[in-house]
Amino acid sequence: MRYELYYWAGIQGRGEFVRLALEEAGADYIDVVREADGERAMLRLLDGEDVEHPPFAPPYLKAEEVLIGQTANILLYLGPRHDLAPTAEAGCLWAHQLQLTIADLVDEVHDTHHPIASSLYYEDQRAEAKRRTADFLESRAPKYLGYFERVLARNKADGEYLIGASLTYPDLSLFQVLAGLHYAFPRAMARLEPKYPRVVALHERVAARPRIAAYLSSSRRIPFNEHGIFRHYPELDADP
Amino acid sequence: MRYELYYWAGIQGRGEFVRLALEEAGADYIDVVREADGERAMLRLLDGEDVEHPPFAPPYLKAEEVLIGQTANILLYLGPRHDLAPTAEAGCLWAHQLQLTIADLVDEVHDTHHPIASSLYYEDQRAEAKRRTADFLESRAPKYLGYFERVLARNKADGEYLIGASLTYPDLSLFQVLAGLHYAFPRAMARLEPKYPRVVALHERVAARPRIAAYLSSSRRIPFNEHGIFRHYPELDADP
Repeated sequence: MRYELYYWAGIQGRGEFVRLALEEAGADYIDVVREADGERAMLRLLDGEDVEHPPFAPPYLKAEEVLIGQTANILLYLGPRHDLAPTAEAGCLWAHQLQLTIADLVDEVHDTHHPIASSLYYEDQRAEAKRRTADFLESRAPKYLGYFERVLARNKADGEYLIGASLTYPDLSLFQVLAGLHYAFPRAMARLEPKYPRVVALHERVAARPRIAAYLSSSRRIPFNEHGIFRHYPELDADP
Repeated sequence: MRYELYYWAGIQGRGEFVRLALEEAGADYIDVVREADGERAMLRLLDGEDVEHPPFAPPYLKAEEVLIGQTANILLYLGPRHDLAPTAEAGCLWAHQLQLTIADLVDEVHDTHHPIASSLYYEDQRAEAKRRTADFLESRAPKYLGYFERVLARNKADGEYLIGASLTYPDLSLFQVLAGLHYAFPRAMARLEPKYPRVVALHERVAARPRIAAYLSSSRRIPFNEHGIFRHYPELDADP
């Protein structure tokens, strides 16, 4: 069975959290929108009147006959199938709880450059973006990074991964968040990172995994850019 | 077994989505923070260094020995245990997908009055709140309400509930969103509602369920107020 991933072309966006899981799993998948006529296929599932369970927005994943929307929900489905989640229920819930917290952080990163409206250009909300980003870098990013540092420290297995002794899907997502924050806010992250050594080490550990390393150096990894969630606007990454 | 719900006192907030499920289920639960010394107990789980799986923020639910955080994750746990979710995996995923979409909408409602920083007062971001709310009422609320209207219309069972022929936890959460939008934006909702008759009917259907009706008229239902997610600031609910 080949998975079909549907997500906007040209950006990593929320689709990237799914791609990383599929890549680490060595799963057979197709990134539909990067194929000929793929965007039309994506929009048909989004807007088609005969779609019984329509998604609200990309990404969505077609697996067998099931169409699954919402990034964290897709990972909830993939995790146990590809050895990327704990097997017991309590562990599954803990993994999902961490994933939903990462999703909250990702939403906040998006709103640093779009605090007023997704439908407006960044340039039309730059003043507000500066205010929001200052708060994000001062309060919110440290709160989230400190949280994940604590989770790693309290993992009784060894602290190399968020849960137990092996990698699970929230590790892949936290890797992606760190990569994105490095891209968007290199100056702020240079100041912040020394406080979160476990999180930084996790990022490096995930990047070095053979399948992830191969993926990151392939053309399948879309470069960060100013259309995605993590955007580098130097004026937002100012000195404190 | 008595569930322990931990959430801030004095507001419905995200805790309300859990309360509604517990109430509809007739479950035995305690709203810990409304008891003597409850806030201290909540903060101990949040900040205690011996908590192996610390939550990032309330609400969280203690069930047996499991501590579960993130609203949608708590409902994922409660749903199948209290006949508030489909039993097959595809149905469970669909219910959770709808719940996560409701969570996104709730985040956007919160940001109508706090577009710059949760740590600032509303009065310190009122101008930005006006801009963000105008976009929310013009674009985002119709997009979400139209989505749930379509989901109801496409439910082959009969369209009375979001999924199949009986109530599931996302119905309770969509009820709460409608109640909150009525409270926050009565003028805007009077204009919007006629376009979404199925969503409006769902709200009324849930409100009329015996256990929900009893809950809503009890002192356990905290009134909406200007500390929660759904806030009524007349200047934001302006004419178009």
